Amino acid sequence: MPATRRRHTRRNSEQIKAPLISGARREIPTYDLMHDEGLELIEARSEQLLQEVGVKFLDDPEALKLWRASGADVSGDRVRFPPGLLQNLLKTAPRVFRQHARNPARTVELGGNNVIFAPAYGMPFVSDLDGGRRYGTIRDFENLTKLVYTSPWLHHSGGTTCEPTDLPVNKRHLDMVYAHLKWTDKPFMGSVTAPERAADSIEMARIAFGSDFVDRNCVIMANINMNSPLVFDYAMSGAIRTYAAAGQCPVIVPFVLGGATAPVSMIAAVTQAYSEVLVGCALAQLVRPGAPVIFGNFVTSVDLKTGSPSFGTPESALASYVAGQLARRVGLPVRCSGAFTSSKLPDAQAMMESVTALHAAVLSGANFVLQSAGWLEGALTLSYEKLVMDADYLGAMHRFLAGLTLEDDAFAMDAFAEVGPGGHFFGCAHTLRHYETAFYDAELSDTQAFENWSEKGAADMAQRANAKWKSSLKEYDAPHLDEGIDEELQAFMARRKEQLPDIWH
Amino acid sequence: MPATRRRHTRRNSEQIKAPLISGARREIPTYDLMHDEGLELIEARSEQLLQEVGVKFLDDPEALKLWRASGADVSGDRVRFPPGLLQNLLKTAPRVFRQHARNPARTVELGGNNVIFAPAYGMPFVSDLDGGRRYGTIRDFENLTKLVYTSPWLHHSGGTTCEPTDLPVNKRHLDMVYAHLKWTDKPFMGSVTAPERAADSIEMARIAFGSDFVDRNCVIMANINMNSPLVFDYAMSGAIRTYAAAGQCPVIVPFVLGGATAPVSMIAAVTQAYSEVLVGCALAQLVRPGAPVIFGNFVTSVDLKTGSPSFGTPESALASYVAGQLARRVGLPVRCSGAFTSSKLPDAQAMMESVTALHAAVLSGANFVLQSAGWLEGALTLSYEKLVMDADYLGAMHRFLAGLTLEDDAFAMDAFAEVGPGGHFFGCAHTLRHYETAFYDAELSDTQAFENWSEKGAADMAQRANAKWKSSLKEYDAPHLDEGIDEELQAFMARRKEQLPDIWH
Repeated sequence: MPATRRRHTRRNSEQIKAPLISGARREIPTYDLMHDEGLELIEARSEQLLQEVGVKFLDDPEALKLWRASGADVSGDRVRFPPGLLQNLLKTAPRVFRQHARNPARTVELGGNNVIFAPAYGMPFVSDLDGGRRYGTIRDFENLTKLVYTSPWLHHSGGTTCEPTDLPVNKRHLDMVYAHLKWTDKPFMGSVTAPERAADSIEMARIAFGSDFVDRNCVIMANINMNSPLVFDYAMSGAIRTYAAAGQCPVIVPFVLGGATAPVSMIAAVTQAYSEVLVGCALAQLVRPGAPVIFGNFVTSVDLKTGSPSFGTPESALASYVAGQLARRVGLPVRCSGAFTSSKLPDAQAMMESVTALHAAVLSGANFVLQSAGWLEGALTLSYEKLVMDADYLGAMHRFLAGLTLEDDAFAMDAFAEVGPGGHFFGCAHTLRHYETAFYDAELSDTQAFENWSEKGAADMAQRANAKWKSSLKEYDAPHLDEGIDEELQAFMARRKEQLPDIWH
Repeated sequence: MPATRRRHTRRNSEQIKAPLISGARREIPTYDLMHDEGLELIEARSEQLLQEVGVKFLDDPEALKLWRASGADVSGDRVRFPPGLLQNLLKTAPRVFRQHARNPARTVELGGNNVIFAPAYGMPFVSDLDGGRRYGTIRDFENLTKLVYTSPWLHHSGGTTCEPTDLPVNKRHLDMVYAHLKWTDKPFMGSVTAPERAADSIEMARIAFGSDFVDRNCVIMANINMNSPLVFDYAMSGAIRTYAAAGQCPVIVPFVLGGATAPVSMIAAVTQAYSEVLVGCALAQLVRPGAPVIFGNFVTSVDLKTGSPSFGTPESALASYVAGQLARRVGLPVRCSGAFTSSKLPDAQAMMESVTALHAAVLSGANFVLQSAGWLEGALTLSYEKLVMDADYLGAMHRFLAGLTLEDDAFAMDAFAEVGPGGHFFGCAHTLRHYETAFYDAELSDTQAFENWSEKGAADMAQRANAKWKSSLKEYDAPHLDEGIDEELQAFMARRKEQLPDIWH
């Protein structure tokens, strides 16, 4: 019965991964928290909010021109929306689309019952048990990209996994996109901090995939965090327009903290987020009807003792379920939740909050779960240990999403007949037929007897995770990248770096 | 806006607890994982299993007599059940009933949308950060009973929270029941390790509540772990009969580990557990039609690397959802899941696994969640720190179960009008009206800025929990117990202890 670790790990991924495209498949129902009348009420309040209050587009006359032409009411930089306008515009958005990876076997499908896990995004700090917390560097960025590549449970390489703060702010996107093309062959995200950096990201994708291919296919995704409440600044609306014009996928993510950037009520926060996301997704359709977009959701609350955001809370889990339902009604793929926590360490709080948020993600029907591994400290720190802990848990979520089979053999009537009352099932024929694929093998969870565990050093999960990321980095093998493409990418980066002066903040 | 810790804590419990009886109320839907055809298939396979294989009742001629009279097929100690017999017997079991506490305000209701949380049960060891892992004593038992009493989120005092191993095995039940009557006024569980200890437990309840009251009302619950697969030994079936005859509530809990005490397939394990629990609950009805019973569920799997049980797994979460659905179809209150983990420490693994299992508990529609606080190491260790960590998380689960309100004021349309695009909601009128009750205040979750947290000692959650249980014990105030009753309980214990020789294993 015992099998080696290596064998178990291979089996898990072989068993669960789909043969054609990458990603988990949700074979279990979504959890529909809210009844239809409640959802209709939210939609009606959103319509009221968009018509009476509207949103602002700062310093983006191009966006205002598009809105005016669409029939929206534009006054100064404020845009108000007549009922039904946004829903009508969104009819051209695809319900399901593919984001191609440079390795076709790693291409992912967004929408439907697909669930794509991507690592944490946007962290200025990194930490590990040996070095503690420090500013992230391009070396960390490369390490993290490699670690994500080695996990069978992370389908997507993410974007700004950590900020490479040792590089100029106006040039680091070049090195990040290069790392996503060089050290992994999973799909990835481009820069959103300025429209010209978005353009650079797309240009590099064109080198890797070919211009024609990029014009006809989605190969790059971009995470657009709004300035909630109800504002798009130029960096954001410009990035949406840039990616949409190129047929690439903006993920529209309101940044909604109940009590700060939204009212101190979850239902109002959800209503606001829903309104904001409709506007962003519809803008993409105005620029290029049919452009892929993702309905993003990031709703939590502020801790009223410290004024800081709280993560992995019961309120944000409730909000996630409703967001998933609203996204399905409007027919868009949805990004929802992640392995969120306020904790500064990969401790009990970290996993308590992260698992709360991740369950809401998978049961809400999320298609894209950005921030699903590595997050600590309210998005300030990427922890090497938490990255591998979360990734292991995502494996468990693959098993969860697969549900229970009702095949005849699964009922094991032959085993009951063989074993009978009072026996045990360790060696019966049914067990021998199935034990290798029966259960998810959580690599970082310890189930040993206390004495064995104690003799081997009494390590906690964070210490086991420390050993795991080091061995994964050691075993890392880079995927093949065509030499000509590599040279062209490097030449492009060198040229752009020469053209631009260094900016550091 | 900031408020003191004390104030927040009081507010949380005031806001969420119901006024009349204790317990959480589930205002959100259950998660129905399995379609009706799947449930019908499980029921059909169970019928086949009960008819073809049946169960054994060891050394209990009285139980066999009852089964023979009911129309079951009894051959030796094996009982086989014709289709429909058990479902028919279960018609007399109450769908909803109350377990009375000696303080009427702490009486709980089992069934319907009530969710009652009780601490861990049956641990031989205890641990805390200062003293490490050691055998439990009666002093620990009293401490733990007091800690459970101080938490607003634990409604039930449980039973054998830890084994008081410094007392003889045949007498320790007396001290445990006494502690549940003396140091708390929450409802509790009696002994099940032998029918005469069950009788002692009921006798002590009669002293505390009055004999007439006990005859007419449920005041004591008992957790009956079966010898899966498909066996009731005399200690178990005797305890069921003893409690049921007294109108008290046995909780029938198959002990189902896929790959060991059940087939290595979750759907077969669920089918087996369902079959076993029907038999146990029906036996209670044969003894006394109308006796309260609870449909218990404890289904997980064995780690095929170590041969030890795994906890908080995706497979057991799936099993919990299906068990909840099956229990609702048969119309019985359900005990399901808990804060399970295999970890030896209150670390990341511990809360990762516990939260996985607890979410399955609350969304499966569990009415009684035994093992919801303190559990470590696969039921071997009760951790003081984990007890308070879990209890804090149960507070979050109260908030989760309460769902989202759709009241007009919750949509905060006045706040949107007041704040508008680009503002913030910190000081607006709607926030000032609601901030005190808006969000659950997780006492042990840290949301401070890194610098503040670091300056204050950089404690992880386990260290904060260590401080918390010590302060709770210090602030503990015993509830009033009538002096006459106290004396009578002590006299009963003294008499019984004198009558029995000490047995130590």
